Amino acid sequence: MNIMSMSKQDIINAVKQSNITVCVIGLGRIGLPTAGAFAEAGAKVIGADIDPKIVQIVNSGQSQFRDEQGLNTLIRKVVKNGRLRATTNVSSAVAEAEVVIVCVPTPVDESKVPDYSAVKESCKEIAKGLKKGNVVIIESTVGPGTVEDLIIPLLEKETDMKAGVDFGVASCPERADPGRILENLKKVPRIVGGITQESADVAEALYEAALGVKIVKVSNPKTANAVKLTENLFRDVNIALANEFAILYEKLGIDTIEVMKACSTKYNFMPHYPGAGVGGPCLPQNPYYLIVEGVKAGNIPYLIRFAREINDRMPEHVVMLVAEALNEVGKTVRGSKIAILGAAYKPNIHDLQLTPVEKVFNRLKEMAADLAIYDPMFRGERVFGVKATESLAEAVKGADCIVIGTAHEEFHSLNLAAIDRMCRKPAALVDSRHVVDPSMVRECGFAYRGVGRP
Amino acid sequence: MNIMSMSKQDIINAVKQSNITVCVIGLGRIGLPTAGAFAEAGAKVIGADIDPKIVQIVNSGQSQFRDEQGLNTLIRKVVKNGRLRATTNVSSAVAEAEVVIVCVPTPVDESKVPDYSAVKESCKEIAKGLKKGNVVIIESTVGPGTVEDLIIPLLEKETDMKAGVDFGVASCPERADPGRILENLKKVPRIVGGITQESADVAEALYEAALGVKIVKVSNPKTANAVKLTENLFRDVNIALANEFAILYEKLGIDTIEVMKACSTKYNFMPHYPGAGVGGPCLPQNPYYLIVEGVKAGNIPYLIRFAREINDRMPEHVVMLVAEALNEVGKTVRGSKIAILGAAYKPNIHDLQLTPVEKVFNRLKEMAADLAIYDPMFRGERVFGVKATESLAEAVKGADCIVIGTAHEEFHSLNLAAIDRMCRKPAALVDSRHVVDPSMVRECGFAYRGVGRP
Repeated sequence: MNIMSMSKQDIINAVKQSNITVCVIGLGRIGLPTAGAFAEAGAKVIGADIDPKIVQIVNSGQSQFRDEQGLNTLIRKVVKNGRLRATTNVSSAVAEAEVVIVCVPTPVDESKVPDYSAVKESCKEIAKGLKKGNVVIIESTVGPGTVEDLIIPLLEKETDMKAGVDFGVASCPERADPGRILENLKKVPRIVGGITQESADVAEALYEAALGVKIVKVSNPKTANAVKLTENLFRDVNIALANEFAILYEKLGIDTIEVMKACSTKYNFMPHYPGAGVGGPCLPQNPYYLIVEGVKAGNIPYLIRFAREINDRMPEHVVMLVAEALNEVGKTVRGSKIAILGAAYKPNIHDLQLTPVEKVFNRLKEMAADLAIYDPMFRGERVFGVKATESLAEAVKGADCIVIGTAHEEFHSLNLAAIDRMCRKPAALVDSRHVVDPSMVRECGFAYRGVGRP
Repeated sequence: MNIMSMSKQDIINAVKQSNITVCVIGLGRIGLPTAGAFAEAGAKVIGADIDPKIVQIVNSGQSQFRDEQGLNTLIRKVVKNGRLRATTNVSSAVAEAEVVIVCVPTPVDESKVPDYSAVKESCKEIAKGLKKGNVVIIESTVGPGTVEDLIIPLLEKETDMKAGVDFGVASCPERADPGRILENLKKVPRIVGGITQESADVAEALYEAALGVKIVKVSNPKTANAVKLTENLFRDVNIALANEFAILYEKLGIDTIEVMKACSTKYNFMPHYPGAGVGGPCLPQNPYYLIVEGVKAGNIPYLIRFAREINDRMPEHVVMLVAEALNEVGKTVRGSKIAILGAAYKPNIHDLQLTPVEKVFNRLKEMAADLAIYDPMFRGERVFGVKATESLAEAVKGADCIVIGTAHEEFHSLNLAAIDRMCRKPAALVDSRHVVDPSMVRECGFAYRGVGRP
């Protein structure tokens, strides 16, 4: 079947009638829900992943992401009805498919250089199975130009076919928020940039059919990738700006949270809040995809680079607030029992990827604190090399200092008086996520510090 | 009458029944509409300004701001019905009033240090007329802490009265957008921070009565001033970020305007657009109010400082685009006739304050261009030391290069073919405000450059 020669309506019908086979490469937090959503819409989906454990989990009708609402139910359903199966054999999966969707990770390495090795490996495997009339869609985050200058040349070289003529290529960067992926997949418009009009049209038809979302077509893959980076860098820079305000406002005796909330009443303002830093698979890494293109072009985006630095230094600031708060009650970090509440990089998620709390933990460990971690998403699991406690009480018992690292739902209704009674008094509390009311914390007798608070 | 001892409802009634006299100091773009709005609501208003010409204009029932919709009508009405009169005698105006609202300018000087001399002079005059039970409200933009550390000590010293006891002080920073001031005054919530609860309550009652807007009370004046700066710095930094993207995307062959529009389809994105820089009375100056406090506190907000620098350098980038575009048609800046369309710092406004177009003009003049300016808001007026043309045709006739400096409404429907015919071909067009469609410009035969365009 030559999907490139099909009309939009034909493609939509083919998805509904299970006449299209889609190969999704990479069954991670984006790939698995995407595979599930395409299967649910009717497509035959083969999920390919190099990790046999993940393939096994999926084929048993389960998901490794217990924090993604509705995902387990969806995967169970589409595996049971035969629309989704998983394999470690990428090239044979591609050989069966008309559409290939690439969702492999593209991390940055220690030197902050994007590591496209998974994309490159995928391309080589795709090339082995790719047929005329197929279309390859890149969802993985890559720098603008990477599809044009790396992926396409690689596919052309390995297949001896011509992109845009023999097969289609489009970028359709994922745009979903971990924890709410399935909801986002069906709500947030998708950006599509094809190397040709036909490539873009096919991608548009497929995503409309599978997800029912609005498609925004842009000029080419590099523009689509620029959109993805621009929207995430907007967030990273604005969080850095909030952190810059926070550190200055702490010194000026002004409450940054109060300021942000008041600013929000203006029509052209969007609030961002200070905190312990920025974690997760996207925001701490995305800037470097653009920076590296800037380096090549002789035009480094310094504002973006500097913003990243501000966010990277926030864990250190939290450690200073811990030292200050403990100092206020006459204690040193050394030897104090410090209970860290929340390790995940954001609320209500079972994910530690680049969480800034790890930096706080490591630094306090270096300073010889006696550390305990409680995170409702990680009860009893190994976190930062130690076993997280099963309960809040276990972590807090005998603590000299409480550090709130993640704004998990549960922490918004902490019983501060009860926690205070369990602590070794006088005790301190440092809130890096403006979860608790400073005046209530102080009323309970804690020495209080909060990021951005006077 | 001791307004500080009145209930909220009593104050609202007193405004309606013309039983309160308000002195507004500074009859500029904010002060005059504010005076008008208070008078319209019922208050007796005395407008005080050191400039006799402005006082005369107001007393004749007119406004010097012809670009403020509805302002002339309002001022005519309230002067005619006797609710508003103007004077150059600040202290006697204060002596007649229960409420003093300070709307004097607070520019930054050449070294980027805030110049509070107008505020200080006002305080001295206020002190001569201030009585027990009065309240002083600061609308002028000042750095956080300026009300507490400069204004209040000055008023206390000069009056020998105690702020918060004998008289009230509150900050209620203006939050309106030039060109739409009257509309904003009645729609955008106001931030009020008092030195005491009573000061804040009085200010709340007054603004609610006069403007009918929501009042957001914050902890103190410095928090109110931080809110004002935070919301404007958010804009300045985000425009700088858009400019940073623009300069890099030009090199990468990506259209920044297309990117921003596509990004806008994401729920947590707010678009800002690149351009020739940032002008006006607020954005180019506001960062320095916070920076100077940062310098004092040993904590310079570098991200904000750097963003300012990016915006300040945009006119230079526009000049480079002009040189590039002329070069493409084989011409030098020297000797070329360059028609600048739009001089105002923003669309549809009769205001040149810190307009970045002036920097573009001056630089091109240094490079010996033959310059003409057309701006529909400044027909035949002196602009940057030359006489602006009466018509578009006059400016464009025989031009080698057209530069769009301001996105005035009129320029969105430019007849490019007609303009092209008037130019000395081959001609160039540089759009610093993404007003015209690049492909249409090129179709007409211009060499095209646009900020942020490939």
